[in-house]
Amino acid sequence: MSNILILGGDGYLGWPAAMYFSNRGHKVTVVDNYFRRHVGDHINAAMLYPVPTLIERAKIWYKETGYEIRVIIGDLTDPELMRSLFSGQDINYDWSINNSYTDIPDTVIHYAEQPSAPYSLMNYKTANFTITNNLLVTNNLLFAIRDLAPDVHIIKLGTMGEYGTPNIDIEEGWINIESKGRKDKFLFPRQAGSLYHTTKIMDTDLMWFGVRMWDLKVTDLMQGPVYGIETEESKINNGLRTIFNYDEIFGTVINRFITQAVADYPLTVYGKGGQSRGYLNLEDSLQCAYISFENQAESGELRIFNQIMETFTVNELAELTQESAFELGFDVVINHIENPREEQEEHYYNPVYKGLTDLGVKPHLLSKQSMIDMIKIVKKFKSDINQDVIFNGVKW
Amino acid sequence: MSNILILGGDGYLGWPAAMYFSNRGHKVTVVDNYFRRHVGDHINAAMLYPVPTLIERAKIWYKETGYEIRVIIGDLTDPELMRSLFSGQDINYDWSINNSYTDIPDTVIHYAEQPSAPYSLMNYKTANFTITNNLLVTNNLLFAIRDLAPDVHIIKLGTMGEYGTPNIDIEEGWINIESKGRKDKFLFPRQAGSLYHTTKIMDTDLMWFGVRMWDLKVTDLMQGPVYGIETEESKINNGLRTIFNYDEIFGTVINRFITQAVADYPLTVYGKGGQSRGYLNLEDSLQCAYISFENQAESGELRIFNQIMETFTVNELAELTQESAFELGFDVVINHIENPREEQEEHYYNPVYKGLTDLGVKPHLLSKQSMIDMIKIVKKFKSDINQDVIFNGVKW
Repeated sequence: MSNILILGGDGYLGWPAAMYFSNRGHKVTVVDNYFRRHVGDHINAAMLYPVPTLIERAKIWYKETGYEIRVIIGDLTDPELMRSLFSGQDINYDWSINNSYTDIPDTVIHYAEQPSAPYSLMNYKTANFTITNNLLVTNNLLFAIRDLAPDVHIIKLGTMGEYGTPNIDIEEGWINIESKGRKDKFLFPRQAGSLYHTTKIMDTDLMWFGVRMWDLKVTDLMQGPVYGIETEESKINNGLRTIFNYDEIFGTVINRFITQAVADYPLTVYGKGGQSRGYLNLEDSLQCAYISFENQAESGELRIFNQIMETFTVNELAELTQESAFELGFDVVINHIENPREEQEEHYYNPVYKGLTDLGVKPHLLSKQSMIDMIKIVKKFKSDINQDVIFNGVKW
Repeated sequence: MSNILILGGDGYLGWPAAMYFSNRGHKVTVVDNYFRRHVGDHINAAMLYPVPTLIERAKIWYKETGYEIRVIIGDLTDPELMRSLFSGQDINYDWSINNSYTDIPDTVIHYAEQPSAPYSLMNYKTANFTITNNLLVTNNLLFAIRDLAPDVHIIKLGTMGEYGTPNIDIEEGWINIESKGRKDKFLFPRQAGSLYHTTKIMDTDLMWFGVRMWDLKVTDLMQGPVYGIETEESKINNGLRTIFNYDEIFGTVINRFITQAVADYPLTVYGKGGQSRGYLNLEDSLQCAYISFENQAESGELRIFNQIMETFTVNELAELTQESAFELGFDVVINHIENPREEQEEHYYNPVYKGLTDLGVKPHLLSKQSMIDMIKIVKKFKSDINQDVIFNGVKW
């Protein structure tokens, strides 16, 4: 039994991960500042259905399974809060059954970032927030582990978006460069298409520094956009479902297309729709985090995996959505709208993604059937969908 | 006549640059938050001689030359202060002769960073300060220019330390990579040896994003450690001399060795002393900034120059200091002390540095004579040197 600390444990990935690890018998603590819940007060965001608070969800989980997920509501840009989690001293949990255990975690999964590209580029204030939040949380984590618990394995969510869309194959984190008869190995070049994705490059810069200087153990999961709603654990009780955004700001593309299909809202393909990316579903994202936990990085290793299961163009996703929704009686229109983003709409894209399947991850690919399953769930909330938040065209 | 805005105008480079541009007939405004002056209240830092405030220096400059350098004391991590400088609205100068001109600058020189590697790694608080200060100033600048004054040319001080010590030749900012039969051009790989230097990599990430997305004009000067005291302008009046730190935290290596020689303090060579870096003197640093100003980057261009004039190992610098000081009667001991830093003490180092000399920069190389000239100045302050600050061994 391990002791798992999940930073950003209220999020789209964080909460399902908490249940996934808890369900497998591990002690789990989640920390979150409710950024995603509170930001909706200021911007045009929307979740498909209401989600109980983190404390309420932990209570439902405990009642249903007998497993405890401890909850701390707090802001991890505060270094003192971060350090308290590794100090071995008593922690003031906002919810727990037994407040006495103080053992230091052996694994940290770091999801505690502002994760939206459009949010990061709404204006200079959201840009500064994204930079400050993402880098201070990462830096506080690195220093806390260096100073207090150097054996902890950090599993950090990066993004495939760090690489951008280069004209060469995207390797798994690293590249060997030969130049003028000499050789060295470097981080694969990174040049992202949004400020949010750029902060993830900066996180990589920071972690690579920490690994080289202090022999930290880090796994960086370069994840593609995740889609999906239910996981094995959330099916136990509807109150355990993860937050599901379909708005332009926090919704990911497949989740948004499905919701648009249900809402009779033409699919918003940006420009030509040839933008190619790697994708994976929510359950596979958890599987990847778990297998990374089971197979730790070494001390002094920045281990990087490209965490995607397959690649699609936006046009392919729109067509698959259209075909799948048609089976359920929805007549979906695909709309090519003016691209609000500065990006290549047709480009080479050939990423390597072998590391995680080599460790034993079994991919669940996107299919008409899996699309239909998702659409059926979203359909239950059709009357709640707010069309106003679907597209406003945050430009960059 | 151009309108030049200098961010960090109180610093070792910022103030000499302000005089250099002013002396050539340009309108100059300097902004500074006095970080370097105030940080000495908390840490063991020391300047060789007292330096008048920025306002006092601007007054001396005006009295001596008739040229006005406008002064604003403020913190540029505040986006509103940054934006006010490009708004075309009235600015509240802390000192100026004529408070009425409100024209938007055409060139910004950005020196406003926490510039010390040891400071960035003293503890998690100084680490967070370095990240927040350096990235928010850069980001505020990029957004202000995007939103308010997109034609402004940004001259940004980067550092050769961003590249680290790779086993291949260091190109001038960029590298062409051929992989599996395909090609693309990328930023040259960056992997720095301190957290401060890592924040400069992050600045590059940010600027490269801004250039690609918003067609900004940016020149990034990848500077090596600068040495020197006097410039043509400071010789007019001793009150115009730049700040000169000889402490472990803010002193650069050549300036420190000279001071140690004068103070009968054995030269502090870290480990084997084979660490090789590129160097340039203060006047050449100004010459490089000026020639970059005269030859603007294009819109949508991140133009990168390696701003060094020659390379030395630490051992070579120690020996040159010893020989030069000997001529003035100092008997200097060279001490190889345990290296407090995690770094390679013997390594390949072959940087390209052609861009600035191609534009017309005339290098002034380090020589026994130039060393002797510096030692003579430092010698005047021998009795003021505080031996306690010379080495404390900030570790990383």
